[in-house]
Amino acid sequence: MADIKRVGFVGLGIMGAPMAKNLQKAGFELHIWARHPEEAQELVAGGMIWHESLAECAAAVDAQITIVGFPPDVEAVYLGKDGIIANARPGAYVIDMTTSSPTLAQRIEAEAAARGLHALDAPVTGGDVGARDATLAIMVGGAEDDYDACLPLFRAMGTAISHMGGPGMGQHTKMANQIMIAGAMAGVCEGLSYARAKGIPMERVFGAVKTGSAAGTQLSGYAPRIIKDDWAPGFKIKHFVKDLRIAREEAEDAHLDLDMLRQVLLNYENLMLRDFGENGTQALMKFYESGD
Amino acid sequence: MADIKRVGFVGLGIMGAPMAKNLQKAGFELHIWARHPEEAQELVAGGMIWHESLAECAAAVDAQITIVGFPPDVEAVYLGKDGIIANARPGAYVIDMTTSSPTLAQRIEAEAAARGLHALDAPVTGGDVGARDATLAIMVGGAEDDYDACLPLFRAMGTAISHMGGPGMGQHTKMANQIMIAGAMAGVCEGLSYARAKGIPMERVFGAVKTGSAAGTQLSGYAPRIIKDDWAPGFKIKHFVKDLRIAREEAEDAHLDLDMLRQVLLNYENLMLRDFGENGTQALMKFYESGD
Repeated sequence: MADIKRVGFVGLGIMGAPMAKNLQKAGFELHIWARHPEEAQELVAGGMIWHESLAECAAAVDAQITIVGFPPDVEAVYLGKDGIIANARPGAYVIDMTTSSPTLAQRIEAEAAARGLHALDAPVTGGDVGARDATLAIMVGGAEDDYDACLPLFRAMGTAISHMGGPGMGQHTKMANQIMIAGAMAGVCEGLSYARAKGIPMERVFGAVKTGSAAGTQLSGYAPRIIKDDWAPGFKIKHFVKDLRIAREEAEDAHLDLDMLRQVLLNYENLMLRDFGENGTQALMKFYESGD
Repeated sequence: MADIKRVGFVGLGIMGAPMAKNLQKAGFELHIWARHPEEAQELVAGGMIWHESLAECAAAVDAQITIVGFPPDVEAVYLGKDGIIANARPGAYVIDMTTSSPTLAQRIEAEAAARGLHALDAPVTGGDVGARDATLAIMVGGAEDDYDACLPLFRAMGTAISHMGGPGMGQHTKMANQIMIAGAMAGVCEGLSYARAKGIPMERVFGAVKTGSAAGTQLSGYAPRIIKDDWAPGFKIKHFVKDLRIAREEAEDAHLDLDMLRQVLLNYENLMLRDFGENGTQALMKFYESGD
């Protein structure tokens, strides 16, 4: 296939909408579809081309990007009979940027290849701010030629772009990242809970430890919110639980017992049952409040 | 008591020796004693004043500093009949910089006050590099007047100096710091173990995640050593186990269930039983190798 010009984008939420805008700014022709058309109104007014169905959108583009919610959503948009693989043009690139199952990414790649399509898995980190400022980190799995061909797309959305290996390896890297975050966040919340229980103001402890051996993005980003009782989401618990469940399952498949991961996931699942799913991940603090 | 001029220093190991040198450089008169006199030879050659016993050393100074190994060592040097509290001059400052039990620090402070002495607990972070370069972070518990009087000593050894509250609060802050480190290190090792099990080179994963949401001192400091199979200690497992056992006990005293801390400590204790106690804390990776 020649250079990528027409780009489909599905999943126009808090991450997807600014990512699509950055692609448009970089000169690509954007084609969109959404289950709820009102989500797309502003983007259509800004010059993006609306399609009445996912199938029609996928059939119109050189590269189809998705960033949707959960693995079942990924499975539906790729493997459904009205989905991307059944309808994309031969030779097209299909790129899932959802944080999703590595095993599913490998299955999608195999199905895509059987139809002459080029699939990449390319989850991101950097949050809504990174999406808006085009400073996302993007971890890509798939064939090297396909990675090279899609680099102009990634460069329009992010800064730290890494080819991690074959199909699924972008997702595996994101899982490793999420496992690291789980440990760091548990450390932040258990350390601050300890300080609070011992009667030291949390902001004083944060001031004393923030630049030393305990320093990190989770501490500097979330301790100030915890101190202010601010549980609004930078990243929602329900999405973190989705990620950590995938990581746990993939670890078990590899006969790897990651006990910190298991424990932290259990604690977040407990918070989901207590209706904290829409709160930010820093609400792990709530787990250490009630003594249960 | 007038300004501090004569400073006693006991515990002339990898941390203590350079800290004593920095105090000497700042103009204080250093008085030393060591259980193994050969440890002190170089310092005596450099102008520090040798004493034949701890009691004699403590009796000669305006401020007595200690940084020894474990809480029983702290208890012995402070509360033994030939120890610091029984022998220091009325009005002297006694400052324990060992990472040790907050409860013991409070007991020492009470015994010291009963004899007209001023006790501070002042554990540090920053490792041997911070000790040498006088860039330690120092977390101090004790009376504000005593903290103010001893600030010139702390400034000779460190940069980030914080008064955390009354007796024991320096130690409590250090415990909060160690709990945060435990979580971060578990995250690093579980994340890298996951990547290795899935066949992605660890250095490639480190490159992709090191500046994002998982970034931190533990990741940037230890992942490169793990990648090179370098298990030499920056900080020894046996000392980290000591710290985390104190933290676990103090958390239990406060009816606080810190399950990540408990789990990570169990894993380090397992490594101790397997003779990894002299290795660096990054050898937590070994826990995830054998599948047990």
